[in-house]
Amino acid sequence: MLKMTKTIIKLTVRDVRFPTSLEQHGSDAMHTDPDYSVAYVVIETDQGMQGYGLTFTVGRGTEIVVCAVEALSALVVGKSLEEIVSDFRGFYRLLTSDGQMRWIGPEKGVIQLATAAVLNAVWDLWARSEGKPLWKLLVEMDPRKLISCIDFRYITDALTEEEALDILVKAQTGKQQRVDQMLKEGYPAYTTSCAWLGYSDQLLKQLCTDALNDGWTKFKVKVGADLKDDIRRCSLIRQMIGPHNTLMIDANQRWDVGEAITWVTRLAEYKPLWIEEPTSPDDILGHAAISKALAPLGIGVATGEQCHNRVMFKQFLQASALQFVQIDSCRLGSVNENLAVLLMAHKFKVPVCPHAGGVGLCELVQHLILFDYISVSASLDNRCVNMDIPAHHSKPFNCGQVLK
Amino acid sequence: MLKMTKTIIKLTVRDVRFPTSLEQHGSDAMHTDPDYSVAYVVIETDQGMQGYGLTFTVGRGTEIVVCAVEALSALVVGKSLEEIVSDFRGFYRLLTSDGQMRWIGPEKGVIQLATAAVLNAVWDLWARSEGKPLWKLLVEMDPRKLISCIDFRYITDALTEEEALDILVKAQTGKQQRVDQMLKEGYPAYTTSCAWLGYSDQLLKQLCTDALNDGWTKFKVKVGADLKDDIRRCSLIRQMIGPHNTLMIDANQRWDVGEAITWVTRLAEYKPLWIEEPTSPDDILGHAAISKALAPLGIGVATGEQCHNRVMFKQFLQASALQFVQIDSCRLGSVNENLAVLLMAHKFKVPVCPHAGGVGLCELVQHLILFDYISVSASLDNRCVNMDIPAHHSKPFNCGQVLK
Repeated sequence: MLKMTKTIIKLTVRDVRFPTSLEQHGSDAMHTDPDYSVAYVVIETDQGMQGYGLTFTVGRGTEIVVCAVEALSALVVGKSLEEIVSDFRGFYRLLTSDGQMRWIGPEKGVIQLATAAVLNAVWDLWARSEGKPLWKLLVEMDPRKLISCIDFRYITDALTEEEALDILVKAQTGKQQRVDQMLKEGYPAYTTSCAWLGYSDQLLKQLCTDALNDGWTKFKVKVGADLKDDIRRCSLIRQMIGPHNTLMIDANQRWDVGEAITWVTRLAEYKPLWIEEPTSPDDILGHAAISKALAPLGIGVATGEQCHNRVMFKQFLQASALQFVQIDSCRLGSVNENLAVLLMAHKFKVPVCPHAGGVGLCELVQHLILFDYISVSASLDNRCVNMDIPAHHSKPFNCGQVLK
Repeated sequence: MLKMTKTIIKLTVRDVRFPTSLEQHGSDAMHTDPDYSVAYVVIETDQGMQGYGLTFTVGRGTEIVVCAVEALSALVVGKSLEEIVSDFRGFYRLLTSDGQMRWIGPEKGVIQLATAAVLNAVWDLWARSEGKPLWKLLVEMDPRKLISCIDFRYITDALTEEEALDILVKAQTGKQQRVDQMLKEGYPAYTTSCAWLGYSDQLLKQLCTDALNDGWTKFKVKVGADLKDDIRRCSLIRQMIGPHNTLMIDANQRWDVGEAITWVTRLAEYKPLWIEEPTSPDDILGHAAISKALAPLGIGVATGEQCHNRVMFKQFLQASALQFVQIDSCRLGSVNENLAVLLMAHKFKVPVCPHAGGVGLCELVQHLILFDYISVSASLDNRCVNMDIPAHHSKPFNCGQVLK
C-alpha cells in the first residue's frame, strides 16, 4: 500500500494574496480592509509525491510568515515521512521547541502560523501516501497512534494521555454509523457571507434572501463598530430570518470587558446564540467575566480563531470562559495541536464550532470537524461549522458532496 | 531646546548575532544553545538625528523579526517625531492594530518583538531630541503626558486612565529625593552569570567566588533539566553564598503544572526566593496553582520575560499567579506597554523585578526600573533587577555610575 520511507527533499513556500479589500469582503470591526491571503507550502519527496499546506493571513505581513516557513524548512527537508510519523509528537516538538527559534514565539504568532502551514503539508502528504482524505486517515487511525501525534506538554493538568486515549476508545462505538451519516447528510454549517461589516443594508438584504433560498438556517452578523448600526443590522436580519433560524454576532475583539457586556446586553433582544470574540483573544479571565454576565440572557461566548495554542484553550475551558470552542486549522499547530484541543473540549463538555472562511480554511477544517463528530464527540448538539466563503459560493455546506 | 518637527526619513534594521552557544553562555533548560542576538533598528530624521532600538533574540529566527521590522517601517517613515509623540497612544495602536498585520499577532510573537524594536528606537530619538537619558525623560514628564502614551485597550477592567493618573500624581511626592538616591546608590541587582545550565561545577564555583568578591548578594541558578543536578548545584551555591544571601531558581518553562510543584518542593530546603518560569509563559491559571502550592514553603513565582503583552500581565495579576513581575524591555511593546504593566503591578501591589541579560536588555531596562522606583512604586522592598551580563562583565550594577 505505502512506501513510507519517502524522503522530503524540497520545501517551497509562496505568498499568495487576493484583493478582497476592494469590495470589503471579510471586513470586520478590527480588520477593516483585509486582503485574504495565504502562505502556501509545497513539500516534495524523492519519489515525486507532493504535500500541500497553508496558513491563512489577511494581506500585509504574509511575507513575514513566508520568512518563518523558510526558517523552519531546515528542520523538515531531509526527513522521511516514515521518520516523522513514527514519532510525530517528537517532530511537532522539534518544530515548536527549537532551542533558538522558540524565543520568538513560543507557539504563538508568526512562528506558530508557519508551523501550522508546514505541518498541514506533512499531514496532507501522509494522507496522500495512504490514498485517503485526511478525515479518513484520522478516523481510521488506531487511537494509540493518534495519541502519539499529540504533544501533551503543558496540558496534563487538564487532560492526561490516559484520559485522551479513553475518550477515543469509547468513541469507537457507533463510528461506522456516523461515517455513513456524514457521507449522506453532511455537517451542519452557518454563513457569515451576508453580513460583513462593510456591506450596505441593501447588499445584506439581497444576500440574506439568497442564503435563505439556498437553505441556510444559521447566520452570523459582524458587529462592534457602531451600536446604532448594530441594532439596525441585527433587527433587519432577525426580521428576515424569522424567530426560528439562528443568529450569531461577532465583534472581532473590538471591546473591553465592561463595554462588551453593556453592548451585547443592548443586542440581546435579537436573541443571538453567541457573541464571538467580544474582547482580546488573550483575555481568558475577561471572557470568563463576559460569559458569566451574559449567561442569564441566554447568550454564550465563542472564541478561538486567534487563540494561539492548546495552553490558551486549556485555560478557556478550565475557567468556563467560552461556551463554543472555535478551533482554527492554521492558527493552532496543525492537526497535532487541534487533536489536543478537540479532546480537551470533549472532556470539558464544550461543543466545537470551528472557525473557517478565508482562503483554504473551509477545505481544511471540514476534516477536523468530521473527525470530531465521528471519533470524539459523537454529538451534533449545539454544533456547526463556519463557512464564510465568498458570497457567490454560499451554497449550504455538505461534507458528503465534498468528500466522497 | 528642541525642534520637534523632525521627520523620520529612513529606518534600517540589522541582524546581529554573537556565537554565545560555543561556550554555553545563556544556556538553560529550554534554550540549550542560544546565540545571543538582536534585530537592531536605526531611525534617522531629515535633520540627521538618529534613534537606536533593538529587540533581543537567541539566534535562528532573528531574520524573521528583521522581516517584520521592515514590514512596520512603512508606518514609521514619513512621520515626524512631533506627530508621533503628540499622540503616542495612537501611534502605538497604528503599529499594533494595523488592519492586515494584526492578524499575525495580535500583539504577540514576532510582530510584537518587531514593534518593540521600532518603538524603542522612537523613544531613544525622543530622549536624544530632549538631550536626556530615557529615564530622565520619563521621570520629568508630566503625568498626563505619560498617560497619553499608554494604550488602555483591554485593561480598563483592571486599571483605568484615572487610576493610572492618580498613581503617578501621588508618586510626585519625594521624587527628587529618589532621583538623588538612585544617582548615588544605584538600583539593587542580581546575577545569573555564575550558573547557566551548561556550566560545570568547577566553573560555577569559580564564578560564584568571583561574584561574592565583587560584592554580589543575589544569585540565580538555572534548573529544570535534571533533578539530581539541580539538588547538587543548589546545595553547592547555597553553601558558598551562605544563609543570608539570596538564591533564586529559574526553570525556563520546563515543567507541567504538577511537575513544577513536586520538583520545586524538592528544592525548598535551599530557600529560593522565587521559582522563575516554572511552566508555559501562557499558563496564567497554571502559575496561579503553582503560586498557591508553593506559598506555604515561602517560595514565590516570578515570570514575564516571555509574557507577550499587557493583557497577559493583567491576568497574571488578577489571578495572583505571580509574586514578582518580570517585565522585558523588548518583549512587550516598548516603553508604552511597559508603562501600563508597571502601573498595573503597582495597583496590585506586586513588585517589579525586570528580566534583562542578553544583548542590550540591561542597558534598556535600567531606564524602566529607575522610572518605576522614582515615579511609580517609591519602594525597593523585594525588588531587584536582573543583570545577566556575561561573566567578565559581572560587576555590581550601579545606575549612578552608568547614567550620570
